Amino acid sequence: MKILIVGGTGTIGKAVVNELKPRHEIIIAGHQNGDVQVDVTDQTSIEKMYQQIGKLDAVVSTIGRVHFANLTEMTIENYFVGLKDKLMGQVNLVLSGIKYLHDAGSFTLTSGILNRDPIRTGSSASMVNGALDSFVKAAAIELPRGIRINVVSPTVLTEAMDKYADYFSGFESVPAARVALAYRKSVEGAQTGQVYLVG
Amino acid sequence: MKILIVGGTGTIGKAVVNELKPRHEIIIAGHQNGDVQVDVTDQTSIEKMYQQIGKLDAVVSTIGRVHFANLTEMTIENYFVGLKDKLMGQVNLVLSGIKYLHDAGSFTLTSGILNRDPIRTGSSASMVNGALDSFVKAAAIELPRGIRINVVSPTVLTEAMDKYADYFSGFESVPAARVALAYRKSVEGAQTGQVYLVG
Repeated sequence: MKILIVGGTGTIGKAVVNELKPRHEIIIAGHQNGDVQVDVTDQTSIEKMYQQIGKLDAVVSTIGRVHFANLTEMTIENYFVGLKDKLMGQVNLVLSGIKYLHDAGSFTLTSGILNRDPIRTGSSASMVNGALDSFVKAAAIELPRGIRINVVSPTVLTEAMDKYADYFSGFESVPAARVALAYRKSVEGAQTGQVYLVG
Repeated sequence: MKILIVGGTGTIGKAVVNELKPRHEIIIAGHQNGDVQVDVTDQTSIEKMYQQIGKLDAVVSTIGRVHFANLTEMTIENYFVGLKDKLMGQVNLVLSGIKYLHDAGSFTLTSGILNRDPIRTGSSASMVNGALDSFVKAAAIELPRGIRINVVSPTVLTEAMDKYADYFSGFESVPAARVALAYRKSVEGAQTGQVYLVG
């Protein structure tokens, strides 16, 4: 398969590339690095990326910028960071990507554990993850030509625990290589509308 | 209790008013009608409303504008209608309302069934409802001074079925008066972080 991995230069993205590259042709999109560059908050930039690449069998997104702060310190603008980037960035990859996917192609997005298991400072991440899990369930019943869509919802990564351990007190972390299996299941399998919990 | 009902002139809002008014002092906020007017997409308008009313024991929101259209016809702007109105309008009522709530006061928001049980044309509603259910679970663990927050997630209203029956094919509708009980449970009870499914 020809697979685009948006965010393929991040911690999860690299693990997904490692998991998929032995069997597939991989194109990595990053904000500044990768094979192609894309700003997911800009529809024109997304369209340009797809035009550059042409037809695909699968689009994987491992992007996700959200703002973390105490609820009482969060502003409306802080919430819109996550809504514009992690949420609508990924939704935009889907909306613009449909016409570039072959029949029975797939989208695999990324949410995260915090809508199921919230932490202090995480209200924006919870909101965005809940929105993504729900969007995927809804989009799955409307996508044309047998196109599938799933979302991977991992707990905190082992690779991130040195930085985030205090926020994720008592959480069991998961290595990115294990999370990558869920993306493989989504891309190579036949399921749709699924939220893959990992961790 | 002194209770503000934002959206108190709508179908659910009126039922909530009927359920609560025998025991409480009710203030109804509407976009154009009601005791006070508010534009929930405008933070200044929300602040002005709260300043006008003063201290409260409970804030109930039954607002919720989202755009319905087939997934392949939805634009980014279409999704932002629901994100700005039903989602961030209600989040804004919470963020701005905290300082106007007495200790142990409560917020009760409104989501809906479509993130659990999606329909064609409903991907924006699904997204926004999932975001709200998740935001409430996260906000509940961070609200100060014993302030509580819950969300009511009703199925399609019996009162709306003449208009929406084709979209909600096979759904069992629920009368607004039954939905109103969930708001009463949230306001008069002691639970927090709950998603009350009705229907």
